[in-house]
Amino acid sequence: MCAKKDIKKIVSLCKARGFVYANSEIYGGLSNTWDYGPLGVLLKNNIKAAFLKKFVQENEYNLQIDTAILMNPKVWEVSGHISQFSDPLIDCRSCKTRHRADKLIKELNLGNFDDMSLSEMSEFIKNNKIKCPNCGNVDFTSVRNFNLMFKTFQGITEDKKDEIYLRPETAQGIFVNFLNILRTTRRKIPFGVVQIGKSFRNEITPGNFIFRTREFEQMELEFFCKPKESFKWLEYWKNFCKNWLLSLKIFPQNIRFKDHSEKELSHYSKVATDIEFLFPFGWGELWGIAHRGSFDLTNHQRVSKKKLEVFDEKENLEYLPEVIEPSLGLDRVFLALICNAYEEENVKEETRVVLKLHKFLAPFKAAVLPLSKKLSSKAYNLFLLLSKKFQLVYDETGSIGKRYRRQDEIGTPFCITYDFDSEKENTVTIRDRDTMKQTRVKIEEVEPYITDEICF
Amino acid sequence: MCAKKDIKKIVSLCKARGFVYANSEIYGGLSNTWDYGPLGVLLKNNIKAAFLKKFVQENEYNLQIDTAILMNPKVWEVSGHISQFSDPLIDCRSCKTRHRADKLIKELNLGNFDDMSLSEMSEFIKNNKIKCPNCGNVDFTSVRNFNLMFKTFQGITEDKKDEIYLRPETAQGIFVNFLNILRTTRRKIPFGVVQIGKSFRNEITPGNFIFRTREFEQMELEFFCKPKESFKWLEYWKNFCKNWLLSLKIFPQNIRFKDHSEKELSHYSKVATDIEFLFPFGWGELWGIAHRGSFDLTNHQRVSKKKLEVFDEKENLEYLPEVIEPSLGLDRVFLALICNAYEEENVKEETRVVLKLHKFLAPFKAAVLPLSKKLSSKAYNLFLLLSKKFQLVYDETGSIGKRYRRQDEIGTPFCITYDFDSEKENTVTIRDRDTMKQTRVKIEEVEPYITDEICF
Repeated sequence: MCAKKDIKKIVSLCKARGFVYANSEIYGGLSNTWDYGPLGVLLKNNIKAAFLKKFVQENEYNLQIDTAILMNPKVWEVSGHISQFSDPLIDCRSCKTRHRADKLIKELNLGNFDDMSLSEMSEFIKNNKIKCPNCGNVDFTSVRNFNLMFKTFQGITEDKKDEIYLRPETAQGIFVNFLNILRTTRRKIPFGVVQIGKSFRNEITPGNFIFRTREFEQMELEFFCKPKESFKWLEYWKNFCKNWLLSLKIFPQNIRFKDHSEKELSHYSKVATDIEFLFPFGWGELWGIAHRGSFDLTNHQRVSKKKLEVFDEKENLEYLPEVIEPSLGLDRVFLALICNAYEEENVKEETRVVLKLHKFLAPFKAAVLPLSKKLSSKAYNLFLLLSKKFQLVYDETGSIGKRYRRQDEIGTPFCITYDFDSEKENTVTIRDRDTMKQTRVKIEEVEPYITDEICF
Repeated sequence: MCAKKDIKKIVSLCKARGFVYANSEIYGGLSNTWDYGPLGVLLKNNIKAAFLKKFVQENEYNLQIDTAILMNPKVWEVSGHISQFSDPLIDCRSCKTRHRADKLIKELNLGNFDDMSLSEMSEFIKNNKIKCPNCGNVDFTSVRNFNLMFKTFQGITEDKKDEIYLRPETAQGIFVNFLNILRTTRRKIPFGVVQIGKSFRNEITPGNFIFRTREFEQMELEFFCKPKESFKWLEYWKNFCKNWLLSLKIFPQNIRFKDHSEKELSHYSKVATDIEFLFPFGWGELWGIAHRGSFDLTNHQRVSKKKLEVFDEKENLEYLPEVIEPSLGLDRVFLALICNAYEEENVKEETRVVLKLHKFLAPFKAAVLPLSKKLSSKAYNLFLLLSKKFQLVYDETGSIGKRYRRQDEIGTPFCITYDFDSEKENTVTIRDRDTMKQTRVKIEEVEPYITDEICF
């Protein structure tokens, strides 16, 4: 169970082996911003590949687009993000620090902020003499809303008219291209549009390593369907998403569905469910699956005056499709997969740390290890040859046992050892990460063996 | 030759078939911002895959990282971007429009702006009575530098101290992680670090479709080597990059090397060469290959006080590596590949438009076409089966000839036709995009046939 794992050890492993680095570290970093190192980027690329394979390539409904991060600001006006995408904030007059009012109330278990208006929160904080978490004084301003979008200026002046935003979600890039997609692909309802890309939210309280960051990568699907079939599709995608996680070896006991209460719903959602994952620090949202209804298309049609309705020939009826949106945080599923895969095992009275990642996801598919440095050049040639098919690593330093452990720790499913019999017999041993068993295999059979084993 | 092709037709094809859409189009767009449609994203994904295969997976020197777009602003101070990454701008007092002073001078062929200081440009524009291109008046302010970085604020105030930038290049993410990479990968000089990601430059005069945009995607390599071997490596990477383009079927006559004159060099470059591509609108930079020397590591070491020098055991010497940087614009190579591949051919007195993309790059690897609607369900099953291996398209509408043309236009290398003999014989015909020849193939041999043909 993930709950029993030590997040500190997992973070250390990520930093020590090059999965994740602190961003701008030599200058003291940038708060809650992280970079992906050489192993991290391989894992991330493989997660994306696994997503695209099942959600696009093999899926008869979905296609993918890739829209710009910077968009016409009208989009965010119409989507409701300018008016409604905000957190309630409060300033301490004494030490000049700023805080989320809802968190202050929630963390002290003093009340349910969900039901409170801004002025009720102000009153509540005053009446209950809540102290500033920074200086301990009780001298707050009133609560006001703070928009979460990053703002910048395009063009050469910093006038209001040149103000644009970094997108807070990739979804709108799909909605405003709905007509373009209909026009260029001859798709009919139902169909879905996938997008993978960066989004930005100027959160006040990010944290838990890469779980909540201001810059993050989303893998979203907007699935357009007939209104009366929308709840059927909601169920369909809930199961599809859950099964995708299970097929990547996420343990069933580490995930659960959690419905949003009415108060928790985003401004655009009719109903929503999260797939939560049991991180070492507790249950956390992994995949938000929302029924957005026709909220976005209705507003975009009204404001842009473009006709976004589609025609149902069977029912001789024009209608706006409704939208089911499974939205997955790539950084979160990255962390979840590592937490899920991290194991410490006792082997011969030593502790073996092993990342039991799905073989398709593993950063390196195999390590090529010469048993002795005398065998280096032939082993290296084998490494170069197999590198045409797979991302591999070559390692010739340390005892073979140490090299196995190094690979276990980063999830490499196979260690290919080139030994003194390899030259004579044209064979190598392949050692399996999980069973630690070794099999002698002909060199020409290594490639199909690995291809077969990593299949997803 | 690309020079003879009509860029308007190419842009129309891109828009009509879903390679590229205008961003936020239903709201009048956002100037010079583009989105990638379903075919565009597939092509872009394949270009990235071709790059990573040759520059990382099969390359014994290079690894990949993926760093955040937002970084500690100190990075841009030290890299020289805050002080030196700017364009010379001038305002028209009469109509309040802003212009690039160097372009005004250059476009009128009045002088060589390369040699001019800001005040010399001001003088030159005044003395030569250069008119405002917008209103025609001669009433300019003096020329001043305008920084090209997009600025935003992280945190909850918009104070100077919360100012951060959208990165103008991915390279700095690599330099500031140099120590992290050394620490976590046990690499020794020479080695290279690849990064693919978005960068942002607030250009005053973007244009030529996706050739120059404010938001763009880079594929950069920073290759760290011994100073005395740096020019050898510069040659090595120049050839490597050129060969990569040729291996993707770019015609040799469409590319050339162009050395930068001393005045054209970026503030960080010792010497630099561009690989230029002959676009329909003329030669344009595709791949900038710069010798950055130790400019970046020297500055980062001095300011951060972290030791970035490495130790050469053989020569018993500490030194800062020098850097060779091949930097490719993904959007540009995307456009180049389409322009290079676009052909109009006369076939039976009709014009056939065909994108002769390398088969590995083609958005769809094959189209599955039932000869008659009676064969739909069996053809569709074949489509689903092969979709487990390749990105395919299914098309059952229109005559077979029309369907062939539809696929030719988007570069699909193979059309798999399921006909009345297919059921009996368990065979299909595979029609080749370039030769238009048809081959009868057993159904179980279709997958290995395509795998073999698309190999890169």
